[in-house]
Amino acid sequence: MIKIRVLHGPNLNLLGVRERDVYGSTTLSQVNERIKAYAESLGVHVEISQFNSEGELVDALQEAGDWADVIVINPGAYTHYSIALRDAVAAVKVPTIEVHLSNIQAREEFRHESVIAPVCVGQISGFGPHSYLLALQAAKYLVEG
Amino acid sequence: MIKIRVLHGPNLNLLGVRERDVYGSTTLSQVNERIKAYAESLGVHVEISQFNSEGELVDALQEAGDWADVIVINPGAYTHYSIALRDAVAAVKVPTIEVHLSNIQAREEFRHESVIAPVCVGQISGFGPHSYLLALQAAKYLVEG
Amino acid sequence: MIKIRVLHGPNLNLLGVRERDVYGSTTLSQVNERIKAYAESLGVHVEISQFNSEGELVDALQEAGDWADVIVINPGAYTHYSIALRDAVAAVKVPTIEVHLSNIQAREEFRHESVIAPVCVGQISGFGPHSYLLALQAAKYLVEG
Amino acid sequence: MIKIRVLHGPNLNLLGVRERDVYGSTTLSQVNERIKAYAESLGVHVEISQFNSEGELVDALQEAGDWADVIVINPGAYTHYSIALRDAVAAVKVPTIEVHLSNIQAREEFRHESVIAPVCVGQISGFGPHSYLLALQAAKYLVEG
Amino acid sequence: MIKIRVLHGPNLNLLGVRERDVYGSTTLSQVNERIKAYAESLGVHVEISQFNSEGELVDALQEAGDWADVIVINPGAYTHYSIALRDAVAAVKVPTIEVHLSNIQAREEFRHESVIAPVCVGQISGFGPHSYLLALQAAKYLVEG
Amino acid sequence: MIKIRVLHGPNLNLLGVRERDVYGSTTLSQVNERIKAYAESLGVHVEISQFNSEGELVDALQEAGDWADVIVINPGAYTHYSIALRDAVAAVKVPTIEVHLSNIQAREEFRHESVIAPVCVGQISGFGPHSYLLALQAAKYLVEG
Amino acid sequence: MIKIRVLHGPNLNLLGVRERDVYGSTTLSQVNERIKAYAESLGVHVEISQFNSEGELVDALQEAGDWADVIVINPGAYTHYSIALRDAVAAVKVPTIEVHLSNIQAREEFRHESVIAPVCVGQISGFGPHSYLLALQAAKYLVEG
Amino acid sequence: MIKIRVLHGPNLNLLGVRERDVYGSTTLSQVNERIKAYAESLGVHVEISQFNSEGELVDALQEAGDWADVIVINPGAYTHYSIALRDAVAAVKVPTIEVHLSNIQAREEFRHESVIAPVCVGQISGFGPHSYLLALQAAKYLVEG
Amino acid sequence: MIKIRVLHGPNLNLLGVRERDVYGSTTLSQVNERIKAYAESLGVHVEISQFNSEGELVDALQEAGDWADVIVINPGAYTHYSIALRDAVAAVKVPTIEVHLSNIQAREEFRHESVIAPVCVGQISGFGPHSYLLALQAAKYLVEG
Amino acid sequence: MIKIRVLHGPNLNLLGVRERDVYGSTTLSQVNERIKAYAESLGVHVEISQFNSEGELVDALQEAGDWADVIVINPGAYTHYSIALRDAVAAVKVPTIEVHLSNIQAREEFRHESVIAPVCVGQISGFGPHSYLLALQAAKYLVEG
Amino acid sequence: MIKIRVLHGPNLNLLGVRERDVYGSTTLSQVNERIKAYAESLGVHVEISQFNSEGELVDALQEAGDWADVIVINPGAYTHYSIALRDAVAAVKVPTIEVHLSNIQAREEFRHESVIAPVCVGQISGFGPHSYLLALQAAKYLVEG
Amino acid sequence: MIKIRVLHGPNLNLLGVRERDVYGSTTLSQVNERIKAYAESLGVHVEISQFNSEGELVDALQEAGDWADVIVINPGAYTHYSIALRDAVAAVKVPTIEVHLSNIQAREEFRHESVIAPVCVGQISGFGPHSYLLALQAAKYLVEG
Repeated sequence: MIKIRVLHGPNLNLLGVRERDVYGSTTLSQVNERIKAYAESLGVHVEISQFNSEGELVDALQEAGDWADVIVINPGAYTHYSIALRDAVAAVKVPTIEVHLSNIQAREEFRHESVIAPVCVGQISGFGPHSYLLALQAAKYLVEG
Repeated sequence: MIKIRVLHGPNLNLLGVRERDVYGSTTLSQVNERIKAYAESLGVHVEISQFNSEGELVDALQEAGDWADVIVINPGAYTHYSIALRDAVAAVKVPTIEVHLSNIQAREEFRHESVIAPVCVGQISGFGPHSYLLALQAAKYLVEG
Repeated sequence: MIKIRVLHGPNLNLLGVRERDVYGSTTLSQVNERIKAYAESLGVHVEISQFNSEGELVDALQEAGDWADVIVINPGAYTHYSIALRDAVAAVKVPTIEVHLSNIQAREEFRHESVIAPVCVGQISGFGPHSYLLALQAAKYLVEG
Repeated sequence: MIKIRVLHGPNLNLLGVRERDVYGSTTLSQVNERIKAYAESLGVHVEISQFNSEGELVDALQEAGDWADVIVINPGAYTHYSIALRDAVAAVKVPTIEVHLSNIQAREEFRHESVIAPVCVGQISGFGPHSYLLALQAAKYLVEG
Repeated sequence: MIKIRVLHGPNLNLLGVRERDVYGSTTLSQVNERIKAYAESLGVHVEISQFNSEGELVDALQEAGDWADVIVINPGAYTHYSIALRDAVAAVKVPTIEVHLSNIQAREEFRHESVIAPVCVGQISGFGPHSYLLALQAAKYLVEG
Repeated sequence: MIKIRVLHGPNLNLLGVRERDVYGSTTLSQVNERIKAYAESLGVHVEISQFNSEGELVDALQEAGDWADVIVINPGAYTHYSIALRDAVAAVKVPTIEVHLSNIQAREEFRHESVIAPVCVGQISGFGPHSYLLALQAAKYLVEG
Repeated sequence: MIKIRVLHGPNLNLLGVRERDVYGSTTLSQVNERIKAYAESLGVHVEISQFNSEGELVDALQEAGDWADVIVINPGAYTHYSIALRDAVAAVKVPTIEVHLSNIQAREEFRHESVIAPVCVGQISGFGPHSYLLALQAAKYLVEG
Repeated sequence: MIKIRVLHGPNLNLLGVRERDVYGSTTLSQVNERIKAYAESLGVHVEISQFNSEGELVDALQEAGDWADVIVINPGAYTHYSIALRDAVAAVKVPTIEVHLSNIQAREEFRHESVIAPVCVGQISGFGPHSYLLALQAAKYLVEG
Repeated sequence: MIKIRVLHGPNLNLLGVRERDVYGSTTLSQVNERIKAYAESLGVHVEISQFNSEGELVDALQEAGDWADVIVINPGAYTHYSIALRDAVAAVKVPTIEVHLSNIQAREEFRHESVIAPVCVGQISGFGPHSYLLALQAAKYLVEG
Repeated sequence: MIKIRVLHGPNLNLLGVRERDVYGSTTLSQVNERIKAYAESLGVHVEISQFNSEGELVDALQEAGDWADVIVINPGAYTHYSIALRDAVAAVKVPTIEVHLSNIQAREEFRHESVIAPVCVGQISGFGPHSYLLALQAAKYLVEG
Repeated sequence: MIKIRVLHGPNLNLLGVRERDVYGSTTLSQVNERIKAYAESLGVHVEISQFNSEGELVDALQEAGDWADVIVINPGAYTHYSIALRDAVAAVKVPTIEVHLSNIQAREEFRHESVIAPVCVGQISGFGPHSYLLALQAAKYLVEG
Repeated sequence: MIKIRVLHGPNLNLLGVRERDVYGSTTLSQVNERIKAYAESLGVHVEISQFNSEGELVDALQEAGDWADVIVINPGAYTHYSIALRDAVAAVKVPTIEVHLSNIQAREEFRHESVIAPVCVGQISGFGPHSYLLALQAAKYLVEG
């Protein structure tokens, strides 16, 4: 059975609680329920966590390097500068998919570039919680060819 | 029935014919067959074309603006500089998904930024021909909510 | 009789049809009617076309080089990157006026600079369809001194 | 009767007196005569002044904010750096047209961008003293629709 | 008794008269009344002026150099480019506090950096007219330690 | 009673212990005593903490989002790059004041810009420990109008 | 017999007709005659075309990929921005020589860099119509070693 | 008799009064006495003024354009941004020498470039008040060849 | 006896476990054995730790500030952006040597500059695990002169 | 008889001796033999030298200015920064052709621009030792028209 | 007696021989004669040399460090990039005056900045050969106060 | 016996003679004595030279390519711009260690980057003359593994 590690980055635990006008009213636990249900329908195993700390995300990536077939990560704000996350993704060698709820290319205040993207397999962004479901599907394609 | 317009940009007609070491040996018509089969399985209608000319892609986008529910476009090299394509996407108002076979963020020689992405709904890149299939699925999410 | 060539660039055929909140509800054919009526009142001859393709605009500029006294061009999105249009304007030697419906300096997402402006006689922008009428008047000044 | 304030920026009082090879031999008072005559023919009222000082131009813009229907300003060298003029234009709320005798986009030694343009209604440049006459005509369009 | 010079830069005389949606409806003379009342309550002496001209602000800074214990200046638009004001602040040696009504770091269209800040003692911005009152309090801290 | 959360960022626990020539010999606990005394005199409630970890500061900001009326934060080195802190400030919606002991605009070795400032209400910098006291006063203005 | 495809980019059809002071009075058909005569003397086969349209140049490059031994291209204005042409050159795998009539490094108004050069075998520029003849000779060297 | 106009820019009236550690204790009137004495010894006529206002410096340059043989200007802080002064120097056509007391290339906080230098005949900087005396000598060389 | 604190930054715990083709098959504990053996031969005391968290590295640097004579740090990915580490190094005042296994100047994907280097005593990079041994030797030079 | 000076820049004496995988195994003296043989076949006179020193290349260019009809120079590494070579080429007035063995536009680590190219007649690059032979042919075209 | 070392940089030996339209017809030896005559009239001793080689200029600067009171150097093209010359000037500690025949700020193709100027005492440029005479006078001022 | 070539770049012959406050009072010959003594203790052979000329350093590098096992070079000012030295290091293939007396990353006025570092094996900087001794030790590690 395909094993997928899903990691949510900083502040995603506030999903559906604050800034609902921007991110909608779906909470992170509701998103996680949908991820689990979809994983079941695809016949894949998922483990999901959220961390605010850059160091804990590095730890989690390293740990997933020992058992996961694919990693799905929404790096949140770390997208734009965490070279530590990037190095972790590069080191663990497990194919990693970068996911964003919204289209980060339309976020004006920073450079659109993700420092993590170059070491990922691919990117899916802009489809809200569906972005995660598409990533599970993509993970299956990656493993099964 | 959901109607989807799929547009391939410049040089994609060479897919599977040249540079196989980079893009694999699947030809564009084989990709198109897979898109059509998957569309059938999802119960959506697709129309697919490829153009080398920027003006013809603008024409096709405008024409699709009259009937399509979602547009899926792989702008190829125009990704990086065609403000005319961008304006066309913005004008037709049909939700548009940008698709790339490979991870464009890893293409070193140009700025990774897509000038078209900010007016698209989302981006899917890095999964080879599967990127198109994921886009059809994403299109269905967009229309059906 | 003064002969003026009026050229509309990419996506201007959507004028008044889409994005009415931005560009108003006057269609391109209505704009063209007003241009023709004003030309008649000034006693000048106009020929008007719209093209989405960069190559066709180059062709049209070259062809106008054989008979027109003044060229009035709204290069649309090509304003920002078409060095081919610029070279064509420079080559035909017919004085050319760059026109924009809106104030392009207020368009935030790109550099405001027009690559075509340096080889034009002058620029008129920001007055909606009136920009064209002012350009006809300016053309008359240019020819009659 | 439409009331228009025309403001000339620094060094424009030297027009026609020095650098005739660049700007022609028409003096500023001759330009002003032509502006007045054309205003009369259009049935609009104009008041015209020239200032070398940035502070006096700010004063004049503020004062015009109390009575003028349209402001026509040639900011001269201040075009390129006076955020104080820009703030004044933005504050007075009277629609303002930026005018230049020559095509400023062809002035090589500085960035072509005008810091004032984004808060103006539109720009007219490159037609010598005719630029002012076109601006009067444009002002009339603005007020009368 | 501590003596404080308060200087308002260009266009601040329009406060409360124009752009009320941005800056509120308090006029500059009302702000000045509040500054004077608060100064009295703190037991400090204030002298307040507003100038649109860069040269007059330089004059006023130099003159305050002869008697003031602290200078409080809101440089308005000159914040972003007046090296002459900066040199004057540096030369007079009286400790100077830079004040802004709004948070200038959120003003998108220019670089946020103030060319005057590096020679000031500190900055207070974003509290509307209260920014001036906080500056009086800060001035007292500066003098009394 | 107004409730204010005061957060000190990385290395501020070394205040008064090291680099006394730069930051003076007042220790952080002495600063905190002064903050508490001044809060009492203003009749406001404060809770004060210091963290070296970016993740813990994010945690603390999120927690303060549930009860504080105003947040006062000195982000230390994170000022210049912590988009995670910025996102946290933006998400909690409690008005936040950025505070610095010294004038960060005079700190040469980095870009002066704060990535956190644009989502704060205002900034106070350059008055040593008094910066915190001014921030408490400013917080009171913010809540009481 | 060595087969060479010669492609002229936009506006080169105006050669010798306009801007004679810059490019001399030799017309494109005269240049083509010289190319053909020299090809005959070298014993190589040439096919020559000119296109204003970027898309048509891409088409022509792809078509030449099926039969030509060497491609000689003067991309004209597309030199500076056509990533589509670049991709086509890279895809067809036929060794391609970039040719310019004049020394493009002396053309001040744009960055001198050619986006097409990195995927070409070499560059010859600055010798007027002789540049093409030298390219034929170079093509022969490339094929014959 | 050669007639020379000497202009001092903003804040130079503070010379020798403030910041003596940087600029020495010679006052501006002492500098002017030395200039006059040296002028007498060279047999040239000088007229000297100091202005804080950019507009007044433009006025003075224009007025000198009617009678002076050479202009010697120390633009002070305006060196770095006053395009209005630059335009005035360019317009008056009188050969102008830019003078600085100190070596402006060693002034770290701004770009070293002078926007005025390109339209001057030459520059003399770094010799304190002697810079003016060298400029008088240079002026004599300019006029007498 | 000289006391040296050796700190390994993020992901260095993966040394010899992953990416062996890049970093060789020596594990971190083997490196640490070599460091300890060499320290013994030099007669110096070492304490060695590895942390993934930026905050914990700051903590460790601060703690070493109380007892170590020299700090040897390999900041890993934090090299490129951790101003928090930089501030900690600057604050503790213990001479610090920056060490890298590989030549970071040859690492293409980021700016080669280390934000930590300017506050260190020196840098040693490119000699694999020997870099640490050289650093111990250098530390001895620093203390013994 | 046409007289041509051929100059090889720094490190070209290592040609064919080191880095054979990059530059082939032809030595510089073998290249020189081919140049001489081809010169003889064209009926032109050549003199060839190699220098590692920038000053000696300047000397050689100046000396060639007295007798050569054309200079052919491969500036090697100096291509990218020697303004002294550029000035020498500009001063001697003998038409100069810049030659490179490989396509310098594909050399990633530096800016591709040549500081010498703008003062040369033309450039030939990418054809290995044949680049020199093409330059001799081009030289003949230049002299004979 | 004051001892002055005058150094001419690369290509200055061509003065008056080539590019007379730019630099006039005075040869370097004529310039040197005027320098010597003026030195005699001032009662100072001069030694003059010209070098094309950067290394020889460094040697000459070092040697002059042992005996000269002032160095006058026209670094020619090395002005723009020779950090080795800069280091030599900084090391020898003899006050050095940078001289240019023409106004280098008007030389468009490079950055106007001199890398050598920051370590010089002052700069004199734009007065042709008179620049050297003014430098001798300035040298006298420097030594005699 | 391991053979090491030590090269000192421009101005290093002034070591200990000038700028003693920056570089200490040890002369270059004293440094060389220490290098020789340490080499003897390590049982390696060294040859040491100093050159001011870029060309002579290239010559010396090429010559060392024929016999040395390791090259140790302090490129001095050439560190920052000599691509010719870089090419020579790359060509000779002998492993090369870049050495600096001081921490070049702390040298503010230039970009800290070394253009030579990317082709070296490693860098040692900041330990004064000890940097050379550490380099000898590192050289031994390189050869003996």
